[in-house]
Amino acid sequence: MGAEASICSTNGVPLVRNISELPQSDYGRGGLSHITVAGSLLHGMKEIEVWLQTFAPGSRTPIHRHSCEEVFIVLKGSGTLFLAPSSHAKIPGEPHEYPIFQNSTFHIPVNDCHQVWNTNETEDLHVLVVVSRPPVKVFLYQDWSMPHTAAKMKYPYYWDEECFHSPEPKDEL
Amino acid sequence: MGAEASICSTNGVPLVRNISELPQSDYGRGGLSHITVAGSLLHGMKEIEVWLQTFAPGSRTPIHRHSCEEVFIVLKGSGTLFLAPSSHAKIPGEPHEYPIFQNSTFHIPVNDCHQVWNTNETEDLHVLVVVSRPPVKVFLYQDWSMPHTAAKMKYPYYWDEECFHSPEPKDEL
Repeated sequence: MGAEASICSTNGVPLVRNISELPQSDYGRGGLSHITVAGSLLHGMKEIEVWLQTFAPGSRTPIHRHSCEEVFIVLKGSGTLFLAPSSHAKIPGEPHEYPIFQNSTFHIPVNDCHQVWNTNETEDLHVLVVVSRPPVKVFLYQDWSMPHTAAKMKYPYYWDEECFHSPEPKDEL
Repeated sequence: MGAEASICSTNGVPLVRNISELPQSDYGRGGLSHITVAGSLLHGMKEIEVWLQTFAPGSRTPIHRHSCEEVFIVLKGSGTLFLAPSSHAKIPGEPHEYPIFQNSTFHIPVNDCHQVWNTNETEDLHVLVVVSRPPVKVFLYQDWSMPHTAAKMKYPYYWDEECFHSPEPKDEL
C-alpha cells in the first residue's frame, strides 16, 4: 500500500498486534506515555477502548469527567486517585483520596469527576485503562470548585486528535 | 455486617481492590484460573467487565461466540487464537489460526466464533480480558462444523453462576 495508507486507517490493521510496536507519545502532556492498545479510531473498536499509560513521578491526569465507565489496573508503581462522586451540587467539591498501588484495580463511575496522580516521588506509575463508549468525550476542570457548567469539553481527546474526522460535509452541487 | 453480606453483594465493595485478594477459581474448567477483576454481578459494572485468566499448557476456552466486543492482552506465555469470522454460512467453518504471544493484543469482533488455546507445552498463558455488555451470554459449539442453530446458550457463564439471580417471581396475592 502507498502513502495513502495512513496510521489512521483501520484497513490492514493486523488482528494480533505487538503492543511494544504500537505508537507511543506524550500527546503534549508532560510526564505521560500513552499507547492506544485497542482503539475506536485506530482499530475500529465500537464498545471498548484499552490504553496503556505511564505517569512519571508528579504527573497526573487533568481533573475531568466523562459519561462512560472506566476501569484502571495498576501494573506497577503507586499513586493517588482523587474522586468526587457526582451529586446535585454545582461543583465537583472536595474529592475523596484513595491510595492506589501495584496490582490494584478501581473503576470510575459514569460522570464522576476524578484525577489520577502519580504521587510517588521516585517510581513511574503504569496503568492499563479501559473505557466504554469510545472515542472518549472529556470535560475538563481547572480545580475542584469549578462549576460543572464551566467545564471545558475536550473532544476529540489528546490521543484521538490525529485520527479524528468529523463527518465529511456533503457536496452541494 | 453479618452472614447476609454475601460475596454477591455489591454493597460495601471497596473502590480500590487488591487483585491478588480477589476470589480465584477454575469454575469447573480444568487448567483455568479465573479472577473477575471488575464485574457486573460482583462490582456493579454496567458497560465493561475485566477478567484475569491463566490457562495451563493444553487448556483452552470452548469454541464459542457472544454478541459483545472482547479484547485480550497477553501478559505472559503464548498460544493460538482460532477465529472463524461470521458469515452467512450455517456453521462457523474452518477457523483461521493466529499465534498469540507475550505483550500482544487482539480483539474478537462481535459474534465471531473463537477459541483461545494455550498451545505452548510448558508455559502458562496469562491474559487480561475485557468484554462489553456484561454479564456475558455465551453460545457454545462442540466443533467448528456445528450449526449455529445447535449452539448451546450458557447464561449465566461459569463465573457468573454463583451470583446470578433471575428476577424474583412476583408474589401473586
